[in-house]
Amino acid sequence: MAQAARVSGATHLESYAAVPAELTTQILETAARFAAEVLSPLNPIGDRAGSRCEAQGIVTAPGFPDAYRQFRDAGWTSVGAPTEYGGQGLPGVLAVAVSEMWAGANMAFAMCPELAIGALETLRVHAAPELRDEYMPRITSGEWTCTMCLTEPQAGSDLSTLRTRAEPDGDAWRLFGRKIYISWGDHDLTDNIVHFVLARTPDAPAGLKGISLFLVPKKLPATDGTSIDNDIHAVSVEHKVGIRASPTCVMAIGERAGARGWLIGRRHEGLACMFTIMNHMRIGVGMHSLGLAERSLQLARLHARERLQGHDAAGSQRPIIEHADVRRMLLTMKSLLHAARCLTYTAAATVDVAHAGQEPQTRAAAMRRADLLTPVIKAWVSDIGFEIASLGVQVHGGTGYIDDAEISQVFRDARIGSIFEGTNYIQAQDLLGRKVVRDRGAALGELLADIESTARALPSVATLEGLRSGLLEGCAELRAAAARIIADAPGDPQLIGAVAYEFLSWLGVLAGGWQWALSAAEALEGGGSAESQGIIATASFYAARILPRTRTYAAAVAHGSRPVESVPTSEL
Amino acid sequence: MAQAARVSGATHLESYAAVPAELTTQILETAARFAAEVLSPLNPIGDRAGSRCEAQGIVTAPGFPDAYRQFRDAGWTSVGAPTEYGGQGLPGVLAVAVSEMWAGANMAFAMCPELAIGALETLRVHAAPELRDEYMPRITSGEWTCTMCLTEPQAGSDLSTLRTRAEPDGDAWRLFGRKIYISWGDHDLTDNIVHFVLARTPDAPAGLKGISLFLVPKKLPATDGTSIDNDIHAVSVEHKVGIRASPTCVMAIGERAGARGWLIGRRHEGLACMFTIMNHMRIGVGMHSLGLAERSLQLARLHARERLQGHDAAGSQRPIIEHADVRRMLLTMKSLLHAARCLTYTAAATVDVAHAGQEPQTRAAAMRRADLLTPVIKAWVSDIGFEIASLGVQVHGGTGYIDDAEISQVFRDARIGSIFEGTNYIQAQDLLGRKVVRDRGAALGELLADIESTARALPSVATLEGLRSGLLEGCAELRAAAARIIADAPGDPQLIGAVAYEFLSWLGVLAGGWQWALSAAEALEGGGSAESQGIIATASFYAARILPRTRTYAAAVAHGSRPVESVPTSEL
Repeated sequence: MAQAARVSGATHLESYAAVPAELTTQILETAARFAAEVLSPLNPIGDRAGSRCEAQGIVTAPGFPDAYRQFRDAGWTSVGAPTEYGGQGLPGVLAVAVSEMWAGANMAFAMCPELAIGALETLRVHAAPELRDEYMPRITSGEWTCTMCLTEPQAGSDLSTLRTRAEPDGDAWRLFGRKIYISWGDHDLTDNIVHFVLARTPDAPAGLKGISLFLVPKKLPATDGTSIDNDIHAVSVEHKVGIRASPTCVMAIGERAGARGWLIGRRHEGLACMFTIMNHMRIGVGMHSLGLAERSLQLARLHARERLQGHDAAGSQRPIIEHADVRRMLLTMKSLLHAARCLTYTAAATVDVAHAGQEPQTRAAAMRRADLLTPVIKAWVSDIGFEIASLGVQVHGGTGYIDDAEISQVFRDARIGSIFEGTNYIQAQDLLGRKVVRDRGAALGELLADIESTARALPSVATLEGLRSGLLEGCAELRAAAARIIADAPGDPQLIGAVAYEFLSWLGVLAGGWQWALSAAEALEGGGSAESQGIIATASFYAARILPRTRTYAAAVAHGSRPVESVPTSEL
Repeated sequence: MAQAARVSGATHLESYAAVPAELTTQILETAARFAAEVLSPLNPIGDRAGSRCEAQGIVTAPGFPDAYRQFRDAGWTSVGAPTEYGGQGLPGVLAVAVSEMWAGANMAFAMCPELAIGALETLRVHAAPELRDEYMPRITSGEWTCTMCLTEPQAGSDLSTLRTRAEPDGDAWRLFGRKIYISWGDHDLTDNIVHFVLARTPDAPAGLKGISLFLVPKKLPATDGTSIDNDIHAVSVEHKVGIRASPTCVMAIGERAGARGWLIGRRHEGLACMFTIMNHMRIGVGMHSLGLAERSLQLARLHARERLQGHDAAGSQRPIIEHADVRRMLLTMKSLLHAARCLTYTAAATVDVAHAGQEPQTRAAAMRRADLLTPVIKAWVSDIGFEIASLGVQVHGGTGYIDDAEISQVFRDARIGSIFEGTNYIQAQDLLGRKVVRDRGAALGELLADIESTARALPSVATLEGLRSGLLEGCAELRAAAARIIADAPGDPQLIGAVAYEFLSWLGVLAGGWQWALSAAEALEGGGSAESQGIIATASFYAARILPRTRTYAAAVAHGSRPVESVPTSEL
């Protein structure tokens, strides 16, 4: 919750004030125990067993249904849910911290309940009262889980070619189509599943402006109080590189009379409604990546302390943590992870302020900041999450490549982060095109000003000079680069696409340095403990070894679209 | 073979002169057909089946023994082997080109025969005549395969703690110990396997200077002309993230009366003898990585041409190859791959000159260059090989994460490159410590002078200005950084370890740019064909988007050991 102090307006939030520090600690400790004792032991079991598609539906890995029952009974599904429908209404940043632990212990499991918060928010804002009353309490309690059904074989990053159709049927709709890559699309953890499905109505215009959002339950209530199957079911499950216990399903919709569904929000405005869930999920991908990165660091650190190779001057064998290159790898992992974690928690607290801040102006500013940070959290944090997982393998040497080593599963699981919930390039395009060029750099300018004021306020100590100057130079260069792109983009249609990825990575590294500056300033106040020294020295490592990555990104961005566009397509 | 023109002295080699261009083309085309028709279809089969440890030994994946028989019958085992014992004596650079195809089609298979060339060289230089006569013809013909037995549970990167012991037994030795991570340590492809085993004799001094090299066959000739089992066998096989069809064995040596073995070279000089094989294998890892990277590029390019997402201005769907970010990814892959391939082939031709160059001075200069380049080929090429494989997954989006997609196997297979045959950090330490600091920058200076003269000779065209200036600045900065390290290393024992990895990456990117400059100069002579234009534009992409990576490495190197050393170990 200390993170809240970094976000303007967060400390005044009711939800934050209502949670005393002891309660926070207690929640985190209980979560850590659940993650370590229940979820973590199931992680390799799920990896080996995967899930199977049987006649009655998807059968998950042994132990998963029971773990979910315990998860639900302990109230973990409702941590971040609004109190109105039985949720605990705890701060979003606390929900993220708890979720990071689920992902670190068992990412495949963590993906199942995580959709709930975004789904509840979508229902709260866009759904009819009777739909809210029927579904929100059961989603909050974890009795039912949720899915997002977007992708179709021909429609992935580009949803404009979506074909699933919805036909009117009294007060509801009947849906027909096929969806792929649906995470937890079917399973045996709960009696019912609530699918959020994008489809077209008969009067829909072509393209993105003709897409509507429907709620399609797996089971429908029957008149006798039991339930009957709705016309939506999994027809197969993918075998994947990682997150193997998470069933990735192909869903057949309307193979018989059509799947009964209810419109959420207005017709043709489904994409905007779905974005409420998707924005939650994008910060959720950052949170996954933090969890996996943390696990990677824990495993690597442990291995590096135990594994003996080489000798010191006196002839004694040395743990490899004393070797300079192993230290380089661990510090790269640790400094990136801390930067990414602070940035992700900051984004989560900013979303809290955007929803519940005291003044309209505070809420609007927080919304601009959250919109700007969301693609950075999704893309940069998943990229460095994978980098940290791969470094974890490297620290392990040959043992890291063996299936029995937990790090090898972390590595495989972490690779999906840059692909799902919108590829990292889709995020980069969103950042540069929509969040920077479209508002002519306003939100970016506010962020850079905050970073600069943090850098200027850094106490003047030699070890932090590099961080201060690196941040100030980085902000000036990024601001200038953004101004050039804003000026040139109208006349150069390929410019945004050609440099967006590097632009996002650049902002990620810079914003990570900002978070280190805040941490270092706090540590300086904390006096000379080993922990404080460690924080200051690691901040200084970030400045020396990580911040220079911005030089490469800056050079790439400076070259604009020409390098990417001047090679004939036939020669690619 | 065009690559030979880039290596001083190579065009005068007898082996090069003996191979007319038509024969080269014919060999490469025949190899390509074998790779496509025999090895590639077995690749997913081997990935799924792996290999099993049975009572009679390791059973490989279905089809592997038969493919090896065809491989042997077609004479592929002897391509690069010396003519003296039945080999074809073709240039090393041609053998590398052929091997790249095996690795691209089926890396797990390719690992089996690849040890032969290094093993033959070790026997030729270090073994007694009767050992040469007995083993070299059978290794050349592929009748028997070879292994390197180095690693033990307590001795990985640090071989000084090796415990396997050899006791004298008449004219031979008896060995006792346990080796781990032995690639193709046992299999059912051939009747016999020739193990090259590091062990200590009873009089051996402690540490690296007490290690001897022994030849230990799986089967010994019996007096009746048949053979009997030697006391060395696989006791288990690892399940791995990738290269699953390549049996990675734990070898028990001397569980009964000891495994009969013969000393190769002199006692206590085993490490130097083994380095003859290891240097071959290190260039071999670069060659694997090229093969996997080439396959990744082929698969990504195909997917990018076929997959439609998004629309052009007229409303038609576009293949994703027209999207700027997909082009960025493909060009990153292509430009890195070409740079790495040219550099690897250059290193192979340099090794040829070092062995067979006309003048002693030519040979010595080539040996210095080969020694300098070998760790760069092993480490930089395997790092970027994995980067290219991971980008291949990214171009595929969600489909790239599915086991059925060939790219997902390429990705998993490629991760081992930076770990085995000496981790990439071990390579970096070898480069900076032994090949740069120890010779006070002499070999590096020669290389940088060559790069500079290539850059200066680049015809003055606007598109290549960035490459020319990038190379000249890069050489000047790297020379200055090396001079500082050479001056500071004696007083700063952690310096080499702390910056070696970035130093190697820096040299890799710079040397890759050098190869692009050579290719661009050739293309300029080639006129205005689409191919030439593509080469020049891709060289320019490398200058704009890849060469700037050196800025990040330079900054990291400039900070020396302090960032890595100032964090207390307890806080890592």
